[in-house]
Amino acid sequence: MLTSTQNPLIKEIKKLHTAKGRRQQQLFLLEGTHLLTEASAVNYPLVTVCCTPEWQQNHPQLWQAAVSRCQRAEVVSPAVLNVLATTVQPDGVIATARRPAMLTPAYPHDVQSFSATWEQPLSLALALQTVQDPGNLGTIIRTAAAAGVDGLWLSEDSVDLDHPKVLRSTAGQWFRLPLAVSSDLSELVCQFKTQGIQVVATLPDAALSYWEIDLKAPTLILLGNEAAGLSADLVTLADRPVKIPLFREVESLNVAIAAALILYEAQRQRLGIRDNKLFQS
Amino acid sequence: MLTSTQNPLIKEIKKLHTAKGRRQQQLFLLEGTHLLTEASAVNYPLVTVCCTPEWQQNHPQLWQAAVSRCQRAEVVSPAVLNVLATTVQPDGVIATARRPAMLTPAYPHDVQSFSATWEQPLSLALALQTVQDPGNLGTIIRTAAAAGVDGLWLSEDSVDLDHPKVLRSTAGQWFRLPLAVSSDLSELVCQFKTQGIQVVATLPDAALSYWEIDLKAPTLILLGNEAAGLSADLVTLADRPVKIPLFREVESLNVAIAAALILYEAQRQRLGIRDNKLFQS
Repeated sequence: MLTSTQNPLIKEIKKLHTAKGRRQQQLFLLEGTHLLTEASAVNYPLVTVCCTPEWQQNHPQLWQAAVSRCQRAEVVSPAVLNVLATTVQPDGVIATARRPAMLTPAYPHDVQSFSATWEQPLSLALALQTVQDPGNLGTIIRTAAAAGVDGLWLSEDSVDLDHPKVLRSTAGQWFRLPLAVSSDLSELVCQFKTQGIQVVATLPDAALSYWEIDLKAPTLILLGNEAAGLSADLVTLADRPVKIPLFREVESLNVAIAAALILYEAQRQRLGIRDNKLFQS
Repeated sequence: MLTSTQNPLIKEIKKLHTAKGRRQQQLFLLEGTHLLTEASAVNYPLVTVCCTPEWQQNHPQLWQAAVSRCQRAEVVSPAVLNVLATTVQPDGVIATARRPAMLTPAYPHDVQSFSATWEQPLSLALALQTVQDPGNLGTIIRTAAAAGVDGLWLSEDSVDLDHPKVLRSTAGQWFRLPLAVSSDLSELVCQFKTQGIQVVATLPDAALSYWEIDLKAPTLILLGNEAAGLSADLVTLADRPVKIPLFREVESLNVAIAAALILYEAQRQRLGIRDNKLFQS
């Protein structure tokens, strides 16, 4: 059992708490039983797994599954695990995994290669510009997966996709949704338009609400920074400006809420559910 | 200028960081320019206002407005302000205010007295059971205000409505939405039903989706704990169980996202916006 926080392995893993460390090692941190379970469910390859003796005893199957898919497995003291985790009360296990190639912002991450990677045509996708809060990004990923989105692009100047709090906030959906970092969102949006995919952007003064446009067609939804919104050049590129109606002089909605409303409206329209059609109960 | 963190006033305000302190003093903390601006906009009475000399210089009008509505105003050193604030980088001002009576869970907070207090009949309301995360509660309050909700009830065992992070997460909407703490949500729900208000609850195995029920009628929406959902007795009381469709084997949505989807669907139905009606652009 590893009991020293000065152990070289422990010191290397600790560096993954920072963006710099994750970039240098090209690894990221998976904290907690839930994320490890989700990684196992999709057979995501692991590099290192560390757990406390108590966790090992309580999760024999998950431990075996993790050991069989990682390069190194170590039982560590609770004190060492506390040092490895970014949370105040870790639940006994952390792992490291290699960053997916799509998280490295290499231009182009074009629409066709993305579709080829994930083997599906794009019908509903999200592009996020300069989203800063890891909790917001994680919630958007979780919601986008639940709403059946095909993929999500993130501008390079956003919070890191593998920030530990992003992973936690996705409630495990990080592994189920195709994700990519883009070094040039404008270029990406132009590619979408060339392929006949409509580009929807939320604007407070848009003429139509998000309920009033046809979201059944292949659609890319653009969402901007929590405070500043979308940049002017992306707004100009969008061919479908929409507003979300706001009551009580409220200025704006949380970006994850805005994402959810438009994504689920798209699904409502696509499922062909019309008013009062099924009001039987 | 107050420069000592041992000053009795400073020590008293610091106690408002905890639920115990807020209950004992029956005061809560308003942090930052944005919340102070919102409190001023609705003429919310203040008890104490503390700001740094720099903030005072940069916000002369807001300072005057705050001074005229508080019992005590003090300029404090940046070091003292840092001690007063719960955030790492406070923006130069904090205030204290008396807790509204509705935050004290006194049974009954019945529907009629609530309506009388806010001088409006209830058409769309929220009741939250054991919501634990202050960021979730704040986002729900912000979204509920934006969606035109008439009021929000919270079970007594939830996170405090005046938790500093709740206030921050509401983006100022805390002051615009009628809020109350209830010591008995089941009794409250029964009162709603007696008055002919339908009670909607989200259940993963409900037969109908939230798109398929009539949300134009007066409606109370029940939402449960982040992990455990609603208690069995509240589920039994709800007369309109609905599900939110989930793709990709996602298990659940964040509670603030679920709230937003149902509230905005209610507004869509109430505004009479039907599919394709306005697809003109």
